[in-house]
Amino acid sequence: MVSAAAEWPASQALSVVSVLSATDPDSIVSTSVPHLELDFGGVVGDRHHGLTRPSDSRQLRYYPRGTMIRNRRQLTVVSVEELAEIADRLSLPSVDPAWLGANLLVDGAPELSALPMGTRLLLSGGAGLICEGVNQPCRQPAEVLQTRFPRSRAQAGFVKAAYGRRGIAVSVELPAPIVPGEDV
Amino acid sequence: MVSAAAEWPASQALSVVSVLSATDPDSIVSTSVPHLELDFGGVVGDRHHGLTRPSDSRQLRYYPRGTMIRNRRQLTVVSVEELAEIADRLSLPSVDPAWLGANLLVDGAPELSALPMGTRLLLSGGAGLICEGVNQPCRQPAEVLQTRFPRSRAQAGFVKAAYGRRGIAVSVELPAPIVPGEDV
Repeated sequence: MVSAAAEWPASQALSVVSVLSATDPDSIVSTSVPHLELDFGGVVGDRHHGLTRPSDSRQLRYYPRGTMIRNRRQLTVVSVEELAEIADRLSLPSVDPAWLGANLLVDGAPELSALPMGTRLLLSGGAGLICEGVNQPCRQPAEVLQTRFPRSRAQAGFVKAAYGRRGIAVSVELPAPIVPGEDV
Repeated sequence: MVSAAAEWPASQALSVVSVLSATDPDSIVSTSVPHLELDFGGVVGDRHHGLTRPSDSRQLRYYPRGTMIRNRRQLTVVSVEELAEIADRLSLPSVDPAWLGANLLVDGAPELSALPMGTRLLLSGGAGLICEGVNQPCRQPAEVLQTRFPRSRAQAGFVKAAYGRRGIAVSVELPAPIVPGEDV
C-alpha cells in the first residue's frame, strides 16, 4: 500500500482474505466468489458497478437526489479487525462481510476506515484502487444482521457500533482481477 | 465549496476568474475561452480529456510507464494568489495561468494547493469537481516562462518557486458548463 498522501505505516502488511460480489440488484448482501473481475466501473456484475450512478441521500447536500454523477463508490473494503470490533460491540459471534455487501475483506488493518481519501491501494495481482472515503453505516446491514440474529440488538445498535468501522469505498484506477491471498 | 472531509473555511469565497482550454496536443499552453464544456472525461477538446490516460513519470512508483489508468488529472485549477506568489519569487511581472496549461483560474484561494484530496468543489453553474491532489511542478511551464521572459531566471527557478503553489488537479464528478464569474 503506497500513496503520496497517506501516512500508512510502511511496515503494515495487508492481505486479501476473501472477495465477494453483490449480484442481486435488490439486496445489499454479497457472496463469496473465487475472484473479482474489475474494469473502470468497478466489479463486473456487482450491483454497484458503473462509471456513473444516481446520487443518493449521502450527496443530498451537494446534488439533487438522482443526479447522474461519477461513481466513486465502486467497491467496499472492510477489515477483519473492524468487523470483529463491530461484532464485539453488538455481542454477536461474528459479522460476515457479505452481510454488509462488502467486496474485499482484508486482514491487518485495524484502522482501515481512517484511511485518507485519495490513498492508493496497490494489490499484488496488479489492481490499483483509490480510497474515496469512509463508508457511512446505513440501516440495510442492520436489518440483515437482525434477521441473522433475531434475539440480538443488532438492528438498533448497528449504526452506532459500526460508526468509523464500516470500511471504505474505493474506485478503480487500474483494473486487474483480484483473488484471495493477494498482498495490499 | 463544500466537503465532508475538507477543512476549508466556510467564509472563504472563491470565484472563477477565467476558464481556459489546452487544445494543442503538442503544447501545454492553454488559451482563454468563453466557457468550458465538461463531461465525465474532463474538458471536451482539452489535451487532458479522457476517462483513462497512460500513466507517466508521476506514477512510476506504482505502475509501469504507459499503463492505461483512470484519468484523475482532468483539469488543472490555479489561484490568482498563488500565481502572484510564484511571480514574486521569480521577480516576474506576472505568471499567466495559460502558460501553466491551467483550465480554471480562481480568486480567493491563497492556499488552494493545500486542499486535501477528495475535497468536493461545487460551482454555482452546477459542475461538481473532486480534488485529486496538488499539481507537481514540471519543467514545461518553466520553458514557457523562460521564452516569455528571456532575461529572467524562470527556467532555473520555476520548480522551486512553484513548489506547493502550482494549483491542484481535479476530476469531474458532475459535468456542467463552467463560465467566468461563477462562485465555488
